[in-house]
Amino acid sequence: MQKLEKIIGYKFKNKKILLEALTHPSFFFKESYERLEFIGDLILDAIVGIYIYKKYKDKDEEYLTNLKSAYVNKNYLKKVADKIGVIKYSKYVGEPPNRTDKFLEAIIGAIYLDGGWKNAEKFIKKFILNTQLEPLRDYKNLILNYARKIKGVIPEYEITEIKGPPHKREYEVKVKIKGIRNIGKGKSSSLKEAEILAAKSLYEKIIKS
Amino acid sequence: MQKLEKIIGYKFKNKKILLEALTHPSFFFKESYERLEFIGDLILDAIVGIYIYKKYKDKDEEYLTNLKSAYVNKNYLKKVADKIGVIKYSKYVGEPPNRTDKFLEAIIGAIYLDGGWKNAEKFIKKFILNTQLEPLRDYKNLILNYARKIKGVIPEYEITEIKGPPHKREYEVKVKIKGIRNIGKGKSSSLKEAEILAAKSLYEKIIKS
Repeated sequence: MQKLEKIIGYKFKNKKILLEALTHPSFFFKESYERLEFIGDLILDAIVGIYIYKKYKDKDEEYLTNLKSAYVNKNYLKKVADKIGVIKYSKYVGEPPNRTDKFLEAIIGAIYLDGGWKNAEKFIKKFILNTQLEPLRDYKNLILNYARKIKGVIPEYEITEIKGPPHKREYEVKVKIKGIRNIGKGKSSSLKEAEILAAKSLYEKIIKS
Repeated sequence: MQKLEKIIGYKFKNKKILLEALTHPSFFFKESYERLEFIGDLILDAIVGIYIYKKYKDKDEEYLTNLKSAYVNKNYLKKVADKIGVIKYSKYVGEPPNRTDKFLEAIIGAIYLDGGWKNAEKFIKKFILNTQLEPLRDYKNLILNYARKIKGVIPEYEITEIKGPPHKREYEVKVKIKGIRNIGKGKSSSLKEAEILAAKSLYEKIIKS
Protein backbone atom coordinates (compact mmCIF):
# COMPACT_ATOMS: atom_id res chain seq x y z
CA MET A 1 0.00 0.00 0.00
CA GLN A 2 2.90 2.36 0.70
CA LYS A 3 4.13 1.71 -2.81
CA LEU A 4 0.68 2.56 -4.20
CA GLU A 5 0.60 5.76 -2.13
CA LYS A 6 3.92 6.71 -3.67
CA ILE A 7 2.64 6.07 -7.20
CA ILE A 8 -0.57 8.07 -6.73
CA GLY A 9 1.23 10.87 -4.87
CA TYR A 10 -1.05 10.94 -1.84
CA LYS A 11 -0.34 9.62 1.67
CA PHE A 12 -3.44 8.56 3.60
CA LYS A 13 -3.89 9.64 7.22
CA ASN A 14 -6.42 6.83 7.62
CA LYS A 15 -5.08 3.71 5.88
CA LYS A 16 -8.33 1.81 6.43
CA ILE A 17 -10.07 3.96 3.90
CA LEU A 18 -7.52 3.13 1.20
CA LEU A 19 -7.86 -0.54 2.09
CA GLU A 20 -11.63 -0.26 1.62
CA ALA A 21 -11.14 1.31 -1.82
CA LEU A 22 -8.96 -1.66 -2.80
CA THR A 23 -11.38 -4.35 -1.62
CA HIS A 24 -13.49 -6.00 -4.31
CA PRO A 25 -17.01 -7.18 -3.33
CA SER A 26 -15.91 -10.78 -4.07
CA PHE A 27 -13.43 -10.53 -1.17
CA PHE A 28 -15.61 -8.91 1.48
CA PHE A 29 -18.90 -7.46 0.32
CA LYS A 30 -19.76 -5.45 3.41
CA GLU A 31 -16.48 -3.56 3.45
CA SER A 32 -15.84 -3.37 -0.28
CA TYR A 33 -15.24 -0.34 -2.48
CA GLU A 34 -18.88 0.06 -3.48
CA ARG A 35 -19.86 2.99 -1.25
CA LEU A 36 -16.59 4.78 -1.99
CA GLU A 37 -17.09 4.22 -5.71
CA PHE A 38 -20.52 5.87 -5.39
CA ILE A 39 -19.08 9.17 -4.17
CA GLY A 40 -15.85 8.85 -6.19
CA ASP A 41 -17.87 8.72 -9.39
CA LEU A 42 -19.81 11.89 -8.48
CA ILE A 43 -16.69 13.76 -7.37
CA LEU A 44 -14.87 12.78 -10.57
CA ASP A 45 -17.79 13.99 -12.71
CA ALA A 46 -17.95 17.32 -10.90
CA ILE A 47 -14.20 17.98 -10.97
CA VAL A 48 -13.83 17.06 -14.64
CA GLY A 49 -16.97 19.04 -15.56
CA ILE A 50 -15.88 22.20 -13.74
CA TYR A 51 -12.37 21.92 -15.20
CA ILE A 52 -13.72 21.64 -18.74
CA TYR A 53 -16.26 24.42 -18.16
CA LYS A 54 -13.51 26.82 -17.12
CA LYS A 55 -11.06 25.78 -19.83
CA TYR A 56 -13.44 25.95 -22.82
CA LYS A 57 -15.22 29.24 -22.35
CA ASP A 58 -16.52 29.44 -25.91
CA LYS A 59 -17.85 25.88 -26.18
CA ASP A 60 -21.52 24.99 -25.84
CA GLU A 61 -23.12 22.53 -23.44
CA GLU A 62 -23.10 19.69 -25.97
CA TYR A 63 -19.34 19.94 -26.47
CA LEU A 64 -18.74 20.08 -22.71
CA THR A 65 -20.95 17.01 -22.16
CA ASN A 66 -19.21 15.00 -24.88
CA LEU A 67 -15.73 15.99 -23.72
CA LYS A 68 -16.61 15.07 -20.13
CA SER A 69 -17.81 11.67 -21.39
CA ALA A 70 -14.40 11.08 -22.94
CA TYR A 71 -12.72 11.50 -19.53
CA VAL A 72 -15.18 9.68 -17.29
CA ASN A 73 -16.10 6.71 -19.49
CA LYS A 74 -15.29 3.22 -18.32
CA ASN A 75 -12.76 2.38 -21.02
CA TYR A 76 -10.59 5.41 -20.48
CA LEU A 77 -10.71 5.05 -16.68
CA LYS A 78 -9.78 1.37 -17.01
CA LYS A 79 -6.68 2.37 -18.96
CA VAL A 80 -5.72 4.85 -16.24
CA ALA A 81 -6.33 2.26 -13.50
CA ASP A 82 -4.25 -0.34 -15.33
CA LYS A 83 -1.40 2.12 -15.86
CA ILE A 84 -1.33 2.78 -12.12
CA GLY A 85 -1.59 -1.00 -11.64
CA VAL A 86 -4.33 -0.91 -8.97
CA ILE A 87 -5.08 -4.61 -9.42
CA LYS A 88 -1.70 -5.52 -7.88
CA TYR A 89 -2.73 -3.83 -4.63
CA SER A 90 -6.35 -4.97 -4.55
CA LYS A 91 -8.08 -7.80 -2.69
CA TYR A 92 -10.43 -10.14 -4.50
CA VAL A 93 -11.48 -13.77 -4.68
CA GLY A 94 -11.30 -15.75 -7.91
CA GLU A 95 -10.44 -14.23 -11.27
CA PRO A 96 -8.90 -10.73 -11.27
CA PRO A 97 -11.76 -8.22 -11.60
CA ASN A 98 -12.11 -6.74 -15.05
CA ARG A 99 -13.66 -3.41 -14.01
CA THR A 100 -10.50 -1.81 -12.63
CA ASP A 101 -12.12 1.59 -13.30
CA LYS A 102 -14.27 0.95 -10.23
CA PHE A 103 -11.18 0.73 -8.02
CA LEU A 104 -10.01 4.02 -9.51
CA GLU A 105 -13.29 5.78 -8.72
CA ALA A 106 -13.21 4.34 -5.19
CA ILE A 107 -9.66 5.67 -4.73
CA ILE A 108 -10.93 9.12 -5.74
CA GLY A 109 -13.70 8.83 -3.13
CA ALA A 110 -11.13 7.72 -0.55
CA ILE A 111 -8.78 10.61 -1.28
CA TYR A 112 -11.69 13.06 -1.00
CA LEU A 113 -12.78 11.71 2.40
CA ASP A 114 -9.25 11.56 3.75
CA GLY A 115 -7.74 14.69 2.20
CA GLY A 116 -10.58 16.83 0.87
CA TRP A 117 -11.53 18.27 -2.49
CA LYS A 118 -8.13 19.80 -3.30
CA ASN A 119 -6.31 16.49 -3.04
CA ALA A 120 -8.94 14.66 -5.09
CA GLU A 121 -8.59 17.39 -7.73
CA LYS A 122 -4.80 17.07 -7.72
CA PHE A 123 -5.05 13.33 -8.30
CA ILE A 124 -7.58 13.74 -11.13
CA LYS A 125 -5.49 16.42 -12.86
CA LYS A 126 -2.37 14.29 -12.61
CA PHE A 127 -3.81 10.97 -13.83
CA ILE A 128 -7.03 11.66 -15.73
CA LEU A 129 -6.97 15.19 -17.12
CA ASN A 130 -3.29 14.96 -18.08
CA THR A 131 -4.12 13.51 -21.52
CA GLN A 132 -5.71 15.48 -24.35
CA LEU A 133 -8.87 13.68 -25.47
CA GLU A 134 -11.43 14.25 -28.21
CA PRO A 135 -15.11 14.69 -27.24
CA LEU A 136 -16.98 11.37 -27.22
CA ARG A 137 -19.92 11.84 -29.55
CA ASP A 138 -23.35 10.83 -28.42
CA TYR A 139 -24.06 8.38 -31.24
CA LYS A 140 -27.40 7.20 -29.88
CA ASN A 141 -28.65 10.77 -29.94
CA LEU A 142 -27.14 11.43 -33.38
CA ILE A 143 -28.97 8.54 -35.03
CA LEU A 144 -32.13 9.33 -33.06
CA ASN A 145 -32.17 12.85 -34.50
CA TYR A 146 -31.33 11.56 -37.96
CA ALA A 147 -34.11 8.95 -37.88
CA ARG A 148 -36.66 11.48 -36.65
CA LYS A 149 -35.79 14.26 -39.07
CA ILE A 150 -35.14 12.23 -42.20
CA LYS A 151 -37.43 9.25 -41.79
CA GLY A 152 -39.91 10.35 -39.12
CA VAL A 153 -39.22 7.21 -37.08
CA ILE A 154 -37.21 6.06 -34.06
CA PRO A 155 -34.21 3.70 -34.29
CA GLU A 156 -34.98 0.17 -33.18
CA TYR A 157 -32.50 -1.56 -30.89
CA GLU A 158 -32.55 -5.29 -30.47
CA ILE A 159 -30.43 -7.53 -28.29
CA THR A 160 -29.29 -10.32 -30.58
CA GLU A 161 -27.15 -12.26 -28.13
CA ILE A 162 -26.32 -12.52 -24.44
CA LYS A 163 -23.36 -14.68 -23.48
CA GLY A 164 -21.50 -15.51 -20.29
CA PRO A 165 -22.39 -15.70 -16.58
CA PRO A 166 -24.11 -12.73 -14.84
CA HIS A 167 -20.86 -11.10 -13.68
CA LYS A 168 -19.20 -11.46 -17.08
CA ARG A 169 -21.94 -10.86 -19.61
CA GLU A 170 -21.32 -10.10 -23.24
CA TYR A 171 -24.09 -8.34 -25.15
CA GLU A 172 -24.59 -8.07 -28.87
CA VAL A 173 -26.98 -5.39 -30.06
CA LYS A 174 -28.38 -4.59 -33.48
CA VAL A 175 -29.91 -1.25 -34.46
CA LYS A 176 -31.89 -0.35 -37.55
CA ILE A 177 -33.92 2.55 -38.86
CA LYS A 178 -37.06 1.85 -40.87
CA GLY A 179 -36.46 2.79 -44.49
CA ILE A 180 -32.69 2.42 -44.28
CA ARG A 181 -30.91 -0.71 -45.44
CA ASN A 182 -27.82 -0.44 -43.28
CA ILE A 183 -27.69 -2.12 -39.90
CA GLY A 184 -25.49 -1.18 -36.95
CA LYS A 185 -23.98 -3.78 -34.65
CA GLY A 186 -22.21 -3.50 -31.32
CA LYS A 187 -20.72 -5.86 -28.73
CA SER A 188 -19.73 -5.12 -25.17
CA SER A 189 -19.82 -6.32 -21.58
CA SER A 190 -22.24 -3.46 -20.88
CA LEU A 191 -25.63 -3.30 -22.56
CA LYS A 192 -25.49 0.49 -22.72
CA GLU A 193 -22.12 0.42 -24.41
CA ALA A 194 -23.17 -2.27 -26.88
CA GLU A 195 -26.04 0.06 -27.91
CA ILE A 196 -23.66 3.00 -28.29
CA LEU A 197 -21.29 0.93 -30.43
CA ALA A 198 -24.20 -0.27 -32.58
CA ALA A 199 -25.36 3.34 -33.02
CA LYS A 200 -21.82 4.39 -33.90
CA SER A 201 -21.46 1.68 -36.53
CA LEU A 202 -24.80 2.61 -38.11
CA TYR A 203 -23.96 6.33 -38.00
CA GLU A 204 -20.68 5.75 -39.79
CA LYS A 205 -22.37 3.65 -42.47
CA ILE A 206 -24.97 6.36 -43.05
CA ILE A 207 -22.33 9.07 -43.29
CA LYS A 208 -20.36 7.08 -45.88
CA SER A 209 -23.34 6.11 -48.03
CA MET B 1 -33.68 39.88 -9.35
CA GLN B 2 -33.14 41.37 -5.90
CA LYS B 3 -36.34 39.76 -4.81
CA LEU B 4 -35.15 36.40 -6.10
CA GLU B 5 -31.83 36.84 -4.27
CA LYS B 6 -33.79 37.40 -1.11
CA ILE B 7 -35.86 34.26 -1.63
CA ILE B 8 -32.88 32.04 -2.35
CA GLY B 9 -30.82 33.61 0.44
CA TYR B 10 -27.76 34.40 -1.66
CA LYS B 11 -26.59 37.80 -2.90
CA PHE B 12 -24.54 37.68 -6.11
CA LYS B 13 -21.33 39.69 -6.40
CA ASN B 14 -21.61 39.35 -10.17
CA LYS B 15 -25.25 39.89 -11.21
CA LYS B 16 -24.52 38.92 -14.83
CA ILE B 17 -24.07 35.34 -13.82
CA LEU B 18 -27.50 35.18 -12.20
CA LEU B 19 -28.97 36.78 -15.30
CA GLU B 20 -27.36 34.07 -17.43
CA ALA B 21 -28.89 31.37 -15.21
CA LEU B 22 -32.31 32.92 -15.75
CA THR B 23 -32.06 33.15 -19.54
CA HIS B 24 -33.82 30.44 -21.51
CA PRO B 25 -32.27 29.39 -24.87
CA SER B 26 -35.41 30.69 -26.63
CA PHE B 27 -34.54 34.21 -25.47
CA PHE B 28 -30.83 34.31 -26.29
CA PHE B 29 -29.19 31.01 -27.10
CA LYS B 30 -25.57 32.09 -26.86
CA GLU B 31 -25.94 33.51 -23.39
CA SER B 32 -28.53 31.13 -22.00
CA TYR B 33 -28.41 28.93 -18.92
CA GLU B 34 -27.13 25.86 -20.76
CA ARG B 35 -23.46 25.97 -19.75
CA LEU B 36 -24.37 26.83 -16.15
CA GLU B 37 -26.89 24.01 -16.09
CA PHE B 38 -24.09 21.65 -17.17
CA ILE B 39 -21.97 22.35 -14.09
CA GLY B 40 -24.95 22.94 -11.79
CA ASP B 41 -26.19 19.42 -12.50
CA LEU B 42 -22.78 17.90 -11.63
CA ILE B 43 -22.38 20.01 -8.49
CA LEU B 44 -25.88 19.10 -7.33
CA ASP B 45 -25.20 15.39 -7.87
CA ALA B 46 -21.93 15.53 -5.94
CA ILE B 47 -23.30 17.54 -3.01
CA VAL B 48 -26.41 15.38 -2.64
CA GLY B 49 -24.37 12.18 -3.02
CA ILE B 50 -21.78 13.17 -0.41
CA TYR B 51 -24.50 14.32 1.99
CA ILE B 52 -26.34 11.00 1.68
CA TYR B 53 -23.11 9.00 1.93
CA LYS B 54 -22.24 10.66 5.23
CA LYS B 55 -25.76 10.49 6.67
CA TYR B 56 -26.50 6.83 5.89
CA LYS B 57 -23.37 5.04 7.04
CA ASP B 58 -24.97 1.60 7.13
CA LYS B 59 -26.69 1.72 3.72
CA ASP B 60 -25.31 0.03 0.62
CA GLU B 61 -24.49 1.60 -2.72
CA GLU B 62 -27.86 0.67 -4.26
CA TYR B 63 -29.77 2.49 -1.53
CA LEU B 64 -27.54 5.56 -1.86
CA THR B 65 -28.02 5.60 -5.65
CA ASN B 66 -31.81 5.32 -5.38
CA LEU B 67 -32.07 7.95 -2.67
CA LYS B 68 -29.89 10.34 -4.69
CA SER B 69 -32.21 9.77 -7.68
CA ALA B 70 -35.15 10.89 -5.55
CA TYR B 71 -33.45 14.26 -4.91
CA VAL B 72 -31.96 14.97 -8.33
CA ASN B 73 -34.75 13.76 -10.59
CA LYS B 74 -36.50 16.23 -12.88
CA ASN B 75 -39.93 16.05 -11.26
CA TYR B 76 -38.75 16.80 -7.76
CA LEU B 77 -36.44 19.60 -8.94
CA LYS B 78 -39.31 21.11 -10.94
CA LYS B 79 -41.42 21.25 -7.78
CA VAL B 80 -38.59 23.02 -5.95
CA ALA B 81 -38.10 25.47 -8.83
CA ASP B 82 -41.81 26.22 -8.99
CA LYS B 83 -41.99 26.76 -5.23
CA ILE B 84 -39.21 29.34 -5.53
CA GLY B 85 -41.04 30.74 -8.56
CA VAL B 86 -38.01 30.98 -10.86
CA ILE B 87 -40.17 31.36 -13.94
CA LYS B 88 -41.29 34.83 -12.78
CA TYR B 89 -37.70 36.05 -12.90
CA SER B 90 -36.66 34.26 -16.10
CA LYS B 91 -36.35 35.45 -19.69
CA TYR B 92 -37.85 33.46 -22.53
CA VAL B 93 -39.69 33.85 -25.83
CA GLY B 94 -43.06 32.26 -26.45
CA GLU B 95 -44.73 29.84 -24.04
CA PRO B 96 -43.33 29.65 -20.49
CA PRO B 97 -40.69 26.88 -20.44
CA ASN B 98 -41.88 23.69 -18.82
CA ARG B 99 -38.48 22.46 -17.62
CA THR B 100 -38.06 24.86 -14.71
CA ASP B 101 -35.70 22.32 -13.12
CA LYS B 102 -33.10 23.46 -15.66
CA PHE B 103 -33.22 27.01 -14.29
CA LEU B 104 -32.75 25.58 -10.81
CA GLU B 105 -29.65 23.62 -11.84
CA ALA B 106 -28.27 26.69 -13.60
CA ILE B 107 -28.81 28.77 -10.43
CA ILE B 108 -26.79 26.15 -8.50
CA GLY B 109 -24.00 26.48 -11.08
CA ALA B 110 -24.19 30.26 -10.80
CA ILE B 111 -24.00 30.24 -6.99
CA TYR B 112 -21.00 27.91 -7.16
CA LEU B 113 -19.11 30.14 -9.59
CA ASP B 114 -19.96 33.32 -7.71
CA GLY B 115 -19.78 32.10 -4.12
CA GLY B 116 -18.01 28.73 -4.10
CA TRP B 117 -18.88 25.25 -2.93
CA LYS B 118 -20.04 26.23 0.57
CA ASN B 119 -22.74 28.57 -0.71
CA ALA B 120 -23.95 26.06 -3.32
CA GLU B 121 -24.15 23.49 -0.53
CA LYS B 122 -26.10 25.89 1.69
CA PHE B 123 -28.63 26.51 -1.06
CA ILE B 124 -29.04 22.78 -1.78
CA LYS B 125 -29.50 21.94 1.90
CA LYS B 126 -32.07 24.67 2.32
CA PHE B 127 -34.21 23.97 -0.76
CA ILE B 128 -33.53 20.42 -1.93
CA LEU B 129 -32.32 18.32 1.00
CA ASN B 130 -34.79 19.93 3.43
CA THR B 131 -37.50 17.37 2.56
CA GLN B 132 -37.41 13.72 3.60
CA LEU B 133 -37.76 11.56 0.46
CA GLU B 134 -38.02 7.85 -0.17
CA PRO B 135 -35.43 6.18 -2.44
CA LEU B 136 -36.54 6.13 -6.07
CA ARG B 137 -36.42 2.51 -7.16
CA ASP B 138 -34.72 1.59 -10.39
CA TYR B 139 -37.70 -0.08 -12.05
CA LYS B 140 -36.00 -0.73 -15.37
CA ASN B 141 -33.33 -2.69 -13.58
CA LEU B 142 -35.87 -4.49 -11.39
CA ILE B 143 -37.83 -5.84 -14.32
CA LEU B 144 -34.63 -6.59 -16.24
CA ASN B 145 -33.44 -8.80 -13.39
CA TYR B 146 -36.85 -10.39 -13.07
CA ALA B 147 -37.10 -11.14 -16.80
CA ARG B 148 -33.61 -12.63 -16.87
CA LYS B 149 -33.90 -14.77 -13.79
CA ILE B 150 -37.47 -15.99 -14.15
CA LYS B 151 -37.94 -16.11 -17.92
CA GLY B 152 -34.40 -15.99 -19.28
CA VAL B 153 -35.27 -13.06 -21.55
CA ILE B 154 -34.91 -9.28 -21.72
CA PRO B 155 -37.86 -6.85 -21.43
CA GLU B 156 -38.89 -5.35 -24.76
CA TYR B 157 -39.58 -1.62 -24.88
CA GLU B 158 -41.52 -0.13 -27.72
CA ILE B 159 -42.42 3.47 -28.43
CA THR B 160 -46.12 3.41 -29.23
CA GLU B 161 -46.68 7.11 -29.76
CA ILE B 162 -44.81 10.40 -30.18
CA LYS B 163 -46.82 13.60 -30.02
CA GLY B 164 -46.09 17.32 -30.05
CA PRO B 165 -43.37 19.54 -31.57
CA PRO B 166 -39.67 18.81 -30.87
CA HIS B 167 -39.43 21.08 -27.82
CA LYS B 168 -42.62 19.67 -26.28
CA ARG B 169 -42.64 16.00 -27.10
CA GLU B 170 -44.85 13.50 -25.39
CA TYR B 171 -43.78 9.86 -25.53
CA GLU B 172 -45.81 6.76 -24.88
CA VAL B 173 -43.88 3.57 -24.24
CA LYS B 174 -44.97 -0.04 -23.84
CA VAL B 175 -42.91 -2.76 -22.21
CA LYS B 176 -43.47 -6.49 -22.20
CA ILE B 177 -41.65 -9.63 -21.14
CA LYS B 178 -41.96 -12.75 -23.28
CA GLY B 179 -44.03 -15.34 -21.44
CA ILE B 180 -45.86 -12.79 -19.30
CA ARG B 181 -49.32 -11.54 -20.17
CA ASN B 182 -49.16 -8.20 -18.41
CA ILE B 183 -48.00 -5.11 -20.25
CA GLY B 184 -46.52 -1.94 -18.76
CA LYS B 185 -47.28 1.49 -20.16
CA GLY B 186 -45.75 4.90 -19.49
CA LYS B 187 -46.17 8.46 -20.78
CA SER B 188 -43.84 11.40 -20.33
CA SER B 189 -42.16 14.34 -22.03
CA SER B 190 -38.90 12.45 -21.65
CA LEU B 191 -38.35 9.13 -23.40
CA LYS B 192 -36.22 7.86 -20.53
CA GLU B 193 -38.91 8.66 -18.02
CA ALA B 194 -41.67 7.13 -20.14
CA GLU B 195 -39.63 3.90 -20.10
CA ILE B 196 -39.19 4.08 -16.33
CA LEU B 197 -42.93 4.62 -15.84
CA ALA B 198 -43.72 1.73 -18.16
CA ALA B 199 -41.31 -0.49 -16.21
CA LYS B 200 -42.88 0.64 -12.94
CA SER B 201 -46.39 -0.14 -14.11
CA LEU B 202 -45.31 -3.61 -15.30
CA TYR B 203 -43.41 -4.26 -12.06
CA GLU B 204 -46.44 -3.41 -9.97
CA LYS B 205 -48.66 -5.67 -12.04
CA ILE B 206 -46.23 -8.56 -11.65
CA ILE B 207 -45.97 -8.04 -7.89
CA LYS B 208 -49.77 -8.09 -7.52
CA SER B 209 -50.38 -11.13 -9.73
